[in-house]
Amino acid sequence: MSVKIPNRIILPEDKVPQQWYNLRADMVNKPAPLLSPATGEALKAEELTPVFCEELVKQELDDTTPYIDIPEEVQEYYRTFRPAPLHRAYRLEQALDTPARIYFKFEGNNTSGSHKLNSAVAQAYFAKKQGLKGLTTETGAGQWGTALAMACTHFGLPLTVYMVKGSYLQKPYRRSVIQTFGAEIIASPSDTTNAGRGILAKRPGTTGSLGCAISEAVEKAVTTEGYKYVLGSVLNQVLLHQSVIGLEAKEAMELVDEYPDVVVGCAGGGSNLGGLIAPFMQDKLLGRANPRIVAVEPASCPSLTRGRFVYDFCDTAQITPLAKMYTLGCGFIPGANHAGGLRFHGMSPLLSQLYHDGLMEAISREQTNVFAAAALFSKAEGILPAPESAHAIRGAIDEALACKESGEAKVILFGLTGTGYFDMSAYEQYLGGTMTDEIPTDEELRSFEG
Amino acid sequence: MSVKIPNRIILPEDKVPQQWYNLRADMVNKPAPLLSPATGEALKAEELTPVFCEELVKQELDDTTPYIDIPEEVQEYYRTFRPAPLHRAYRLEQALDTPARIYFKFEGNNTSGSHKLNSAVAQAYFAKKQGLKGLTTETGAGQWGTALAMACTHFGLPLTVYMVKGSYLQKPYRRSVIQTFGAEIIASPSDTTNAGRGILAKRPGTTGSLGCAISEAVEKAVTTEGYKYVLGSVLNQVLLHQSVIGLEAKEAMELVDEYPDVVVGCAGGGSNLGGLIAPFMQDKLLGRANPRIVAVEPASCPSLTRGRFVYDFCDTAQITPLAKMYTLGCGFIPGANHAGGLRFHGMSPLLSQLYHDGLMEAISREQTNVFAAAALFSKAEGILPAPESAHAIRGAIDEALACKESGEAKVILFGLTGTGYFDMSAYEQYLGGTMTDEIPTDEELRSFEG
Repeated sequence: MSVKIPNRIILPEDKVPQQWYNLRADMVNKPAPLLSPATGEALKAEELTPVFCEELVKQELDDTTPYIDIPEEVQEYYRTFRPAPLHRAYRLEQALDTPARIYFKFEGNNTSGSHKLNSAVAQAYFAKKQGLKGLTTETGAGQWGTALAMACTHFGLPLTVYMVKGSYLQKPYRRSVIQTFGAEIIASPSDTTNAGRGILAKRPGTTGSLGCAISEAVEKAVTTEGYKYVLGSVLNQVLLHQSVIGLEAKEAMELVDEYPDVVVGCAGGGSNLGGLIAPFMQDKLLGRANPRIVAVEPASCPSLTRGRFVYDFCDTAQITPLAKMYTLGCGFIPGANHAGGLRFHGMSPLLSQLYHDGLMEAISREQTNVFAAAALFSKAEGILPAPESAHAIRGAIDEALACKESGEAKVILFGLTGTGYFDMSAYEQYLGGTMTDEIPTDEELRSFEG
Repeated sequence: MSVKIPNRIILPEDKVPQQWYNLRADMVNKPAPLLSPATGEALKAEELTPVFCEELVKQELDDTTPYIDIPEEVQEYYRTFRPAPLHRAYRLEQALDTPARIYFKFEGNNTSGSHKLNSAVAQAYFAKKQGLKGLTTETGAGQWGTALAMACTHFGLPLTVYMVKGSYLQKPYRRSVIQTFGAEIIASPSDTTNAGRGILAKRPGTTGSLGCAISEAVEKAVTTEGYKYVLGSVLNQVLLHQSVIGLEAKEAMELVDEYPDVVVGCAGGGSNLGGLIAPFMQDKLLGRANPRIVAVEPASCPSLTRGRFVYDFCDTAQITPLAKMYTLGCGFIPGANHAGGLRFHGMSPLLSQLYHDGLMEAISREQTNVFAAAALFSKAEGILPAPESAHAIRGAIDEALACKESGEAKVILFGLTGTGYFDMSAYEQYLGGTMTDEIPTDEELRSFEG
């Protein structure tokens, strides 16, 4: 007799990962190195440490060590909100009338409201350990800014957050949360940096972009004594920290004798997707299994599906290193009607390489379609998803509907990265029927190419 | 060698309660019965069923059965968000430099954002089982309305929510969440009921109160075919369902060989407090232990500390039964500057009786003082508390500071009922220094007495 799989699976303590998994160690084609814009040469550690913490630079450049110990201080913080649960979405399956078995890894049950805390804790810890005086960063939808504010408060580090102006205005209460955790928050582009002033002069009415905010945060870090800059996505080190998502998900599925046929994640800069898929991609690379891996990105910011795989700047003011990635061009700014995060013009070099090598698929979805999935999901599962996460829900639902068509009982795993409590104005628009889709034309996209 | 108590304790499946505990069964002085305003006689089941579901009426009147099975359908829903964790507040202890050991039971990790879901699921289940066509209710801060909307969607029941107008305006996004879960939401007082129209005629500019909203919801239920009314606090049945909070907390503390010297909970209508203290009060009543039990209420709505223990109506329009409770008078409306819930003019008859019998203490705290505790707590523990919950935090901190003074290493347990993501305008006021305290004078309080 088979035992019913529970609605929510929480790993026992002895199954919780104590090491991060570094997917690069198992990749044949490693992600291309960051280049210096001045010399065109691959950047060395000593060229990165003026901007980043030393330990994080080491992690950024390490593409051979497969497992890296999670420091005890980081594990201790993790234990206040991890292990994160794996849910079996019985009610969603029922609502879709699909033979598919749907699982989701829920990373939203912490005050930052998302998976971002996994890397924030690690980065703040290494910064404190190095004896830094403070950190700067940028935030798009606000999840990363909140997470880093929490982590910095925990380790006693001052923090300045540049928040994309569009989100700053659209999410009035996000900044109060970040301020409650003691961080300074500035709407970007701002007049506090040369980069910001330059962008404002060129586009006075702009609602900003992650690229702009990165320029400002980096400039602020390198011009403030004892400060470094940290980033919540895109970088190899971030995907390394986020591997706890996938490691826990895989362990939890093993507990109930399941393995995914398809793994679906939302994709902005790649932090969640890279973490979620890490151990499953390892299985693929080592020939142990062959799950499909699907990235879902917004149609309004479609770096994988419509970008080019080239070296590009990570920021708008072109002060960062060059990264080889799928990119829409560093000047790209998603439409003002775009709700939520996933607004970075490029994609993690690591994920870009995997996608380029055919190890991963990518699709894009319009936001009204994404919010329809969010509304259906919240009623079925009783969890209000972030707009970002709803992209993965859309992708998973589409897979489940295909199973209904074909009669296949596939196992679908998706990443539910966070909650939408601060995105209610977007929900309001959707429920009120005033949400629209704004998809860039080919011509518009071409205009941003370098 | 002693093993370090973990930051977060989650009960194993076999320790999760499968029965609710009915504290009344162990009380020598039972809570006084509800009276009919028409006859002055104790209400019988058949007089309550026109308003309430049959099974819930049975639970309301049952003061002898100590344990009541939780239906499997309710347990199944519980498993999507329960067991709720017990946290050891190490960082708060450190921040306060207290020898006390502080624990809190965190009930906010579900989309409703609070403990209210525990009773909402039960009530919606029994309503569905009875074959009802729909439900009505009221909500103050919005936690109960959200919880019931989730539960009603789950069981396929239409729901109309009357939301206190002050909160409706102060928390613009709460209604979108409730609407996302498919419920109709109306700001109270409204022109959709006689009760609402009457209150509006008398006090045109009123921001409403729970008492007004109850009048409207009850009227709507009894005038709509196939509908019944449900309530998220005050009633015996609600405290019964909420006993899972205390039962889980006690089990979790036993796992780490701890027992509280003091149990602290916030008190509005009494739903959380009654649930949290249930098994500890049982120990007291049966002479097994003697923990102190402390209710913390807002200074702006101080029913226990400044009310009278008399029979009073539960609503403003005086259409409900009379309940014997500590009350400020059914016409009482807390000041408009009051943030969050805990705005009911009375207190659960069960808790009122315990307080009257000297089994429980009560204190009141001003909201600026409460938000100071919330800000300190969120930085220390990385959880953003609801204003309601922050009253319990204030109480626990005050106990811990007293321990610092006396050098005693007391064990303090408090209930962290929910999260404050929809209360950011209140946090903004606090952080911006514009929050004020408004405490009713004795004269004002007297003017509301019946």
